[in-house]
Amino acid sequence: MSHNSFGHLFRITTWGESHGPAIGCVVDGCPPRLALTEADIQPFLDRRRPGQSKFVTQRQEPDRVRILSGVFEGQTTGTPIALLIENTDQRSKDYGEIKDRYRPGHADLTYDLKYGIRDYRGGGRSSARETAMRVAAGAVARKVLEGVTIRGALVQMGPDRIDRAAWDWAAVEENAFWCPDRAAAARWEAMLTEARKSGSSLGAVIEVVAEGVPPGLGAPIYGKLDADIAAGLMGINAVKGVEIGEGFAAAALSGESNADEMRMGPDGRVLFGDNHAGGILGGISTGQPIIARFAVKPTSSILTPRKSVDRFGQEVEVLTKGRHDPCVGIRAVPVGEAMLALVLADHLLRHRAQNPDAPGEARLPRN
Amino acid sequence: MSHNSFGHLFRITTWGESHGPAIGCVVDGCPPRLALTEADIQPFLDRRRPGQSKFVTQRQEPDRVRILSGVFEGQTTGTPIALLIENTDQRSKDYGEIKDRYRPGHADLTYDLKYGIRDYRGGGRSSARETAMRVAAGAVARKVLEGVTIRGALVQMGPDRIDRAAWDWAAVEENAFWCPDRAAAARWEAMLTEARKSGSSLGAVIEVVAEGVPPGLGAPIYGKLDADIAAGLMGINAVKGVEIGEGFAAAALSGESNADEMRMGPDGRVLFGDNHAGGILGGISTGQPIIARFAVKPTSSILTPRKSVDRFGQEVEVLTKGRHDPCVGIRAVPVGEAMLALVLADHLLRHRAQNPDAPGEARLPRN
Amino acid sequence: MSHNSFGHLFRITTWGESHGPAIGCVVDGCPPRLALTEADIQPFLDRRRPGQSKFVTQRQEPDRVRILSGVFEGQTTGTPIALLIENTDQRSKDYGEIKDRYRPGHADLTYDLKYGIRDYRGGGRSSARETAMRVAAGAVARKVLEGVTIRGALVQMGPDRIDRAAWDWAAVEENAFWCPDRAAAARWEAMLTEARKSGSSLGAVIEVVAEGVPPGLGAPIYGKLDADIAAGLMGINAVKGVEIGEGFAAAALSGESNADEMRMGPDGRVLFGDNHAGGILGGISTGQPIIARFAVKPTSSILTPRKSVDRFGQEVEVLTKGRHDPCVGIRAVPVGEAMLALVLADHLLRHRAQNPDAPGEARLPRN
Amino acid sequence: MSHNSFGHLFRITTWGESHGPAIGCVVDGCPPRLALTEADIQPFLDRRRPGQSKFVTQRQEPDRVRILSGVFEGQTTGTPIALLIENTDQRSKDYGEIKDRYRPGHADLTYDLKYGIRDYRGGGRSSARETAMRVAAGAVARKVLEGVTIRGALVQMGPDRIDRAAWDWAAVEENAFWCPDRAAAARWEAMLTEARKSGSSLGAVIEVVAEGVPPGLGAPIYGKLDADIAAGLMGINAVKGVEIGEGFAAAALSGESNADEMRMGPDGRVLFGDNHAGGILGGISTGQPIIARFAVKPTSSILTPRKSVDRFGQEVEVLTKGRHDPCVGIRAVPVGEAMLALVLADHLLRHRAQNPDAPGEARLPRN
Repeated sequence: MSHNSFGHLFRITTWGESHGPAIGCVVDGCPPRLALTEADIQPFLDRRRPGQSKFVTQRQEPDRVRILSGVFEGQTTGTPIALLIENTDQRSKDYGEIKDRYRPGHADLTYDLKYGIRDYRGGGRSSARETAMRVAAGAVARKVLEGVTIRGALVQMGPDRIDRAAWDWAAVEENAFWCPDRAAAARWEAMLTEARKSGSSLGAVIEVVAEGVPPGLGAPIYGKLDADIAAGLMGINAVKGVEIGEGFAAAALSGESNADEMRMGPDGRVLFGDNHAGGILGGISTGQPIIARFAVKPTSSILTPRKSVDRFGQEVEVLTKGRHDPCVGIRAVPVGEAMLALVLADHLLRHRAQNPDAPGEARLPRN
Repeated sequence: MSHNSFGHLFRITTWGESHGPAIGCVVDGCPPRLALTEADIQPFLDRRRPGQSKFVTQRQEPDRVRILSGVFEGQTTGTPIALLIENTDQRSKDYGEIKDRYRPGHADLTYDLKYGIRDYRGGGRSSARETAMRVAAGAVARKVLEGVTIRGALVQMGPDRIDRAAWDWAAVEENAFWCPDRAAAARWEAMLTEARKSGSSLGAVIEVVAEGVPPGLGAPIYGKLDADIAAGLMGINAVKGVEIGEGFAAAALSGESNADEMRMGPDGRVLFGDNHAGGILGGISTGQPIIARFAVKPTSSILTPRKSVDRFGQEVEVLTKGRHDPCVGIRAVPVGEAMLALVLADHLLRHRAQNPDAPGEARLPRN
Repeated sequence: MSHNSFGHLFRITTWGESHGPAIGCVVDGCPPRLALTEADIQPFLDRRRPGQSKFVTQRQEPDRVRILSGVFEGQTTGTPIALLIENTDQRSKDYGEIKDRYRPGHADLTYDLKYGIRDYRGGGRSSARETAMRVAAGAVARKVLEGVTIRGALVQMGPDRIDRAAWDWAAVEENAFWCPDRAAAARWEAMLTEARKSGSSLGAVIEVVAEGVPPGLGAPIYGKLDADIAAGLMGINAVKGVEIGEGFAAAALSGESNADEMRMGPDGRVLFGDNHAGGILGGISTGQPIIARFAVKPTSSILTPRKSVDRFGQEVEVLTKGRHDPCVGIRAVPVGEAMLALVLADHLLRHRAQNPDAPGEARLPRN
Repeated sequence: MSHNSFGHLFRITTWGESHGPAIGCVVDGCPPRLALTEADIQPFLDRRRPGQSKFVTQRQEPDRVRILSGVFEGQTTGTPIALLIENTDQRSKDYGEIKDRYRPGHADLTYDLKYGIRDYRGGGRSSARETAMRVAAGAVARKVLEGVTIRGALVQMGPDRIDRAAWDWAAVEENAFWCPDRAAAARWEAMLTEARKSGSSLGAVIEVVAEGVPPGLGAPIYGKLDADIAAGLMGINAVKGVEIGEGFAAAALSGESNADEMRMGPDGRVLFGDNHAGGILGGISTGQPIIARFAVKPTSSILTPRKSVDRFGQEVEVLTKGRHDPCVGIRAVPVGEAMLALVLADHLLRHRAQNPDAPGEARLPRN
């Protein structure tokens, strides 16, 4: 058991605080002989990196990842892959005034109650900076998931939901919000500018999708594929809800509307009439796209003063200057993709262990 | 790693199929010298048991639990506690006609694609019958959680949400739905009768609440308290969504509305103005009530014929006769409570390991 | 983490006390579609069973194993396999007099210091009775290890070591000691009769051998194949030492004597001049026979009175009547085989997870 | 599950190859508020460091450890502690000639058969260089083990065993071999010089002792304290045997000689007449010193030519120039101490989790 590891056979262990000398990750269990260099990882970090637009924190970290072990002459060796990013732009002085104050909506109080000590600089271990290592590890996981495409998009900002009919994956790369609906993206730009100016912040809902996942990944009871995805996404900073496929809306459907009908495809593969299940039935992948959504609360670091207490038991007012994203949900998009990749890579290895011939043979008739 | 275990220090491993000779559970890691007999467990099983009203499956199982180890002269010994329930009312003949057919919305196809074999009788391992062992284990977990109260309620059936202003915990025990809103309970009775008669089914949303949880339980990055709750609840059969506190609605709030303000209580404890956080910040308990909700899809076993395929690759129609709950969400209430209890007991032990003095000292000022 | 589980991907969890109603085991992670019935397990239990000769305890347990889950129509399903043996011959009255006394050499005191409570009847959880479940689980592991032969033998009783030149596997089944040296077996019969009559007991050394193990099983640093074998064998009751291949004697060899030279076999396989390594180099199997030995201390339950203390802090004399083996090492032979099988099955699955093509390709040249 | 982690609650994960840019370790689960700086770790690394005498490899590594996370203002924070040592003296050219040749007694062949790729430079991941991180992590574990003293000594070199009557802990620090018997140390100097000159090497036996360990640490069945020690010590490079207390010699004792008698101490503590058990009964600590020994095979890297094969399937002769220890057992002394510390720290935390009041109350009478 570890409090800082995720996964079982494809397993990551991260370390590091926001304002320490570096953050890092050990990726253990990666199969050998996969081509891997820093260049495979860096683009994913660049997508997540702060400082890219006025809508994300202006902290300027190059976030240059180094591979320190586990790769030899451009190939994974099967031994642990250590990844490291140096912290280069820590303005620790910004945090002096919250040294003894517990910011509302943050982990300041709970860390102190748990450990009796905390590195308060920039949130220390609870900073979203740690998610850079998830994104880096997720890039390695993608190498394991040959033939699987994992993408994410922001489908709601504040109360404003996109129009699914307008969904265009190409649009996602065109705007600062990873928004697949061009009209929504335009609305959000105005909305977020307003929130930022007023010292407020906005929440968001992100959808991540994995296509090309072979059927049969998962486990029947605990460690179900959807349970592991739920843990992975709920474990991202500021996330308060997770759903698979139809999600909470499934509760309002009738049984005959919700259960996806099946028919035979030309090649012996089973086709589904719809995908309310989000690609998972009984904790095991069906072969359809895996669809998950998660809700990110509005940034708790805001310029509006809020009532709180300090570690001396005094009531105080707190407002967070620093440099912060008015909508942390935006940067959660690549993190959500990474967590989905990590879960799938782990389950792919787990499946192989118990089923040496599979996956692959997902055709009917069965022998 | 195990596909059939849940938890780390307080750890359960379940086994058994719906129509095998028995189902069981091993509870490992339970502290010694806790008073425990079958009478502590049976009431929770009775709450979950089928056959109690016309709204749940008419399968008549006494579900009599036996403790086979780990308890000596009425006290836990610290060694593994084996629980066993015999299966006495298996009408396996009911399932012959779905032996080779994959029921839409069920795990039939995915099990077959994963394992190439399945015990089709009553859903085999994927049957909700397995949840009886979670409820039994949850009763043991409650023993560990002295001073913590865990309760659950159905807050939505089909599209009909309760009126939270009308919430009365006493009402929960008065109706067949664990509904805390008496008016809603009356509406649901009519709605569910109609669904059952028409061969349809309904989904539901359940809320589970833990009061008295000490602050400091959880972990900073992975194995966060909320991530583990998410995994636990998403791992219940037919669940498609999980949220903590404000949940998905948090996405639509502003930062200043969502982040709970704090003030000092008279005894050095921190009080919160609200509980949008659902009792968890940064993956660690705040001391406020822990609130989680999960969505259960409508029962997939319905009398209405649905299109599907069989294992020979033929397209077929499937309708599920058998005995089934028109709203499986009802029986998920005690299961959700149990999963919450299991997560909290595990985290209580984990916290003790790393913090020998705690929890308890959750007062300010901190030294 | 679990205190009562062994293995990772092929994982067993045992439960039960010597004088409780039953003992049991959950085997999790077993691949699907392996033929398995009670008849595959029972012969291994019969080999270990007490009451077979005057040299092992006269407790008469039929030790009839039942499979309660995870097998359908004679094949494993990939879901957890629950095994159960009822305890039928518990003479608990025999143990009343040691209820409050700590037997020297036993776990009585340490259990009490750890848990503050213990089921003293027959040693409770620390009884060697638990090893019946390891033997049963080991029989399932053997099913996973197709092509691998695992055997064990007693190579030393008391101070008397066998003559390795006289080793004959056929002899092992001919005597009550699993002794491969017929002359030694004759000597031991006299020696053990003498020990039993005088109220004393004898220790033993057991060797277990696995042939046909594919190369490549194991892990480089922790969870090395030899480290896991060491844990497995040291975890057997009364074991005080474990060695692999040359073992402690390797310390006295020169580097050129100890390191096994290699040459090419006709089929591209690597052949070794000798097997000082015991089939493992760098924590990974070489393809040669895996050879491990473990030392079992003399039975601590003896008729000779010994000085001890009781739980009230009084000094007392203890002698153990009951029914006991004068050399517990004898019955440890099938247990050692089982532990070796469990470790190898686990590592075979682990290897498959990370190396989808392997094992198998253990020929040179390598690409 | 991880192939590169050790421990459960106090858990280390190491990474790095002999000739990569660095090696490192993540220590997870360390309790908060322990004083810790690099200066607590460095002395243990210095003891293990190569280049200190003519009897250990002349590779000159400063082995300067850096703490990159988990410590704030000189105290542990409860978050993961990352340790890093840069590799500064890698003469990779020394290893070119064994790039394609499998050195007898080394992991070269098995890594290649397992992974199909290996970083051959200096043994890559299988190099004893990795043990530097165990020693560093062990220094952190010692911080957790307040009141516990852990020491080690070389008790046999080649076939020459020390005289236990001459054991003097002070002598250990006086010679290059960690030898507690001054006369033996003098003999070994001559013996090792001879072995080195002749291009040969010697094996060794190391004894590690932990004093002040509270009773009650361990677990009843798997994860026994002795089983975990066995895994920890057997997992050290080149180790072929492990024993606890009397070890293999216990097999030759009678039951009455082996089982340690008990009497009452003046303060309610139980005293033992002897310590054949090595401080562990039934997998749980007794409160007596924990004593373990392990055998290290003679260095496989020798100047004497040996027959082997290469990856092209050709038969070749191999002799290892490089810089190597003629007796790797010497440097295994601090590594053995570290592994014992790691196991004990882990079990201390595990014990606390399940027994909130303990350890401490190890006095009689028991309530």
